[in-house]
Amino acid sequence: MTIKSAYQDLEHRFQRMAVFGEAMSVLHWDMAVMMPPGGAKPRSEQLAAMRVMHHAMMVDPAIGDLLDAAEAMPLDDWQEANVREMRREYIHATAVPSDLVEALSMACSDCETTWRTAKKDNDFKAVLPEMERVLSLSREMGEAKAAKLNCGLYDALLDQYEPLGKSAEIDPIFDDYAAFLPDFLQAVLDKQARDGAPVQANAPFPVDKQRELTRHFAEAVGFSFASGRMDESAHPFSTGYKGDSRITVRYDENDYSQGLMAVMHECGHALYEQGLPDAWHNQPVGAARGMAIHESQSLIVEMQACRSREFVGWASASLARAFGEQAAFEPDNLYRQYIRVKPDFIRVDADEVTYPAHVILRYRLERALLEGDMKLADLPGAWNDGMQKLLGITPPTDTVGCMQDIHRYDGAWGYFPTYTLGAMTAAQLFKAATDADPDIRDGLTRGDFTPLLSWLREHVHSQGSRWNTRELTERATGRALDPQAFKDHLRNRYLGDA
Amino acid sequence: MTIKSAYQDLEHRFQRMAVFGEAMSVLHWDMAVMMPPGGAKPRSEQLAAMRVMHHAMMVDPAIGDLLDAAEAMPLDDWQEANVREMRREYIHATAVPSDLVEALSMACSDCETTWRTAKKDNDFKAVLPEMERVLSLSREMGEAKAAKLNCGLYDALLDQYEPLGKSAEIDPIFDDYAAFLPDFLQAVLDKQARDGAPVQANAPFPVDKQRELTRHFAEAVGFSFASGRMDESAHPFSTGYKGDSRITVRYDENDYSQGLMAVMHECGHALYEQGLPDAWHNQPVGAARGMAIHESQSLIVEMQACRSREFVGWASASLARAFGEQAAFEPDNLYRQYIRVKPDFIRVDADEVTYPAHVILRYRLERALLEGDMKLADLPGAWNDGMQKLLGITPPTDTVGCMQDIHRYDGAWGYFPTYTLGAMTAAQLFKAATDADPDIRDGLTRGDFTPLLSWLREHVHSQGSRWNTRELTERATGRALDPQAFKDHLRNRYLGDA
Repeated sequence: MTIKSAYQDLEHRFQRMAVFGEAMSVLHWDMAVMMPPGGAKPRSEQLAAMRVMHHAMMVDPAIGDLLDAAEAMPLDDWQEANVREMRREYIHATAVPSDLVEALSMACSDCETTWRTAKKDNDFKAVLPEMERVLSLSREMGEAKAAKLNCGLYDALLDQYEPLGKSAEIDPIFDDYAAFLPDFLQAVLDKQARDGAPVQANAPFPVDKQRELTRHFAEAVGFSFASGRMDESAHPFSTGYKGDSRITVRYDENDYSQGLMAVMHECGHALYEQGLPDAWHNQPVGAARGMAIHESQSLIVEMQACRSREFVGWASASLARAFGEQAAFEPDNLYRQYIRVKPDFIRVDADEVTYPAHVILRYRLERALLEGDMKLADLPGAWNDGMQKLLGITPPTDTVGCMQDIHRYDGAWGYFPTYTLGAMTAAQLFKAATDADPDIRDGLTRGDFTPLLSWLREHVHSQGSRWNTRELTERATGRALDPQAFKDHLRNRYLGDA
Repeated sequence: MTIKSAYQDLEHRFQRMAVFGEAMSVLHWDMAVMMPPGGAKPRSEQLAAMRVMHHAMMVDPAIGDLLDAAEAMPLDDWQEANVREMRREYIHATAVPSDLVEALSMACSDCETTWRTAKKDNDFKAVLPEMERVLSLSREMGEAKAAKLNCGLYDALLDQYEPLGKSAEIDPIFDDYAAFLPDFLQAVLDKQARDGAPVQANAPFPVDKQRELTRHFAEAVGFSFASGRMDESAHPFSTGYKGDSRITVRYDENDYSQGLMAVMHECGHALYEQGLPDAWHNQPVGAARGMAIHESQSLIVEMQACRSREFVGWASASLARAFGEQAAFEPDNLYRQYIRVKPDFIRVDADEVTYPAHVILRYRLERALLEGDMKLADLPGAWNDGMQKLLGITPPTDTVGCMQDIHRYDGAWGYFPTYTLGAMTAAQLFKAATDADPDIRDGLTRGDFTPLLSWLREHVHSQGSRWNTRELTERATGRALDPQAFKDHLRNRYLGDA
């Protein structure tokens, strides 16, 4: 019997925890897609028991000692990065006393329940007390993590989703976009008004045809059905792990394009998981880098590639095969549909141009709330003012205003910026990729994503968490994240002739 | 904070283990029904990790101490039965050293792989060495358990599936049936030859119609789709737990009845799980009594009720609605189809009359092998001799002879007798139920299983593992298991005019 080194012992422990995490992801997927109503209570007991077990493995003080020892060992680059990621996970898990974790989890669960009714009733005051509690416990958690991570309160929460993410770096990027948006948006709306509205496709789009179509698209972008599934659920999502990544979709007989584009988005997430480094499967360094890069992978597929001028030809032919020839499916019309811009109240329905405004608003407000610069009772007013300033529209109700998203009611404070960081990273990666390999754009005209996927596999997927987000971006594109590529992309797509 | 009693501590520990077991059952179901091929390796890692965790919880020496303490405590009847069941599980888990468990598990997995090829190639010798290893390790496990359970080797293995089951009680029952069968079978075959073959239904039976039909039947027998699911898989099975029981089916366009009857069978299993006592959910005493009683519940639905003269009228009308009117669906013809007897080589396709012969053969042979009265190399010859003696036919190949079932290759030694004990128990329970409540048979003519189900709920399902199998049978039917009811049922159904 050989004696395990501290590093080997850590690998073994984190492997076991990862495997537990995978099992939990399958149980969650099943809950959303397959489980009958009677299974709800037993399932929550199962997940609670597994969460407790997972947490106990993670906060075992032996891990702290092993990390100290491993950090002093000679290791290769990947191993060193692996230990760095283990340390990060260990800090997040141990920074917060378990009674606070439990209190927050219960507060979120209560708040989410109340939010569902309050949203329906357009009654923000009804959810205010429970949301106050979520906010105050989230702040407490942020402070505990900030103390261990040596960073500010907001950055500590952000770090859970975007490791090493800093609001000091986000602020100038978001401010720049907020300044750019109003004139740009007006110019786009003017142009689209001049060009006239694209022809709408004629419903209905039978669900079985949509199923075949989305499968056809998913195969085209490179989603492997030998290592994944596609199902239907009330809210589309992607989950799973290398070897078994699962995406879900919701079909609407009156609108094929929402389901189709949602699948393309989830496929981008799944391709990232399917392309993570085999050799580091189940190790922290083998995991996806963070939510900004993850979102960049979904958006590079959905927004950069699938809504490109190059791709619409192939898409057009596929649509005509699925639903019969229609004027709406003509490539030029299709392209104009796919890039249609319309400021609206609802984030999840937003187009590429206005989406960042929704995110910037949420980011600014959640920071102000967390940092005590704003009272929760003032949220509805501040929300509506922000929408007016950023997009020139004012939500008629809080239902379609400050109560539209679940995130803030279920405790995901610090998550929002990653959406727009992801969109901007996607633009920068797509530019670097297409500059490096002209066949990427050519491939899209044939519905062939192989050239794009190879570039992403090499520069992003196979890197796992070997580098931090900034390093990964610099190595792949030659520079740190810079909103310029995104703005250039928007100018070109929405104001250019291309 | 209150101090937990030893009993409460045990309840808490067994609850957690049960919850883990539930989670594993969902992962197993997913593996058979949903998982893409790429998920195989991660899934086996997940299940292995959970099995290790579950085993570690089970063999914790603290449990032994707690059991000693709880056995000395004043407890109510259910609690006392609960402790008895805990002790039983603890003995099974701790009797065998973990390296033996692991060696057996690996041997079975290797043997099963080889068996698949050997069966296809009709090459028993190819699997012989690996089967020798499975046999020898199974014997070792049986001996270890026998020492702790104070019983014989075979009974120790049987006890894993049928607690307190004794070969000394099985022998006379099986010998009696083996003696009864040849003349009875001949009489049945003669009668069926005189009556002529029933009209066969005309295929094809579209899969979507079959899906609707099986759902209709499942709802009729009382399967709750709010607490369960029905899916398709290569091999039909049922799994899950109270609140979420899942059955699977395989449809054949050329034969609707196999899939339909398989669903009825699995529904019987699921109804048992759905009817277990709420108050003891996740406790050992709240679990199903054992495999013989479990099988009796599947067979009381499939064999006793769904193939009864009373039920065929309703079934006939449902079939005509699903597939259109056919002569084959006439009630009398349908009944004659459902009770058609034909000695054949394959157990899983066997009818009610000949099925026990398949089981008796396997039981006798596996005992002889385990107890050293027969060499494994002699199995094919002994198998064929046994088939000739019991059913008057000789398998032309080992593929349809001693290699047909997975059980002996994957280590489930001691399992087989429960099938026939279940069939006999089903007959005895059905007689007791219909004697007690005449509306049970009337209900079947209307496709209404409520009266039967209420009787089963009261006398079987709600009892969980409160009683041992013998006590449960006696309390429900007034006597211990006696093959008489089964033989009467067969005489009545196959030789009577009814």
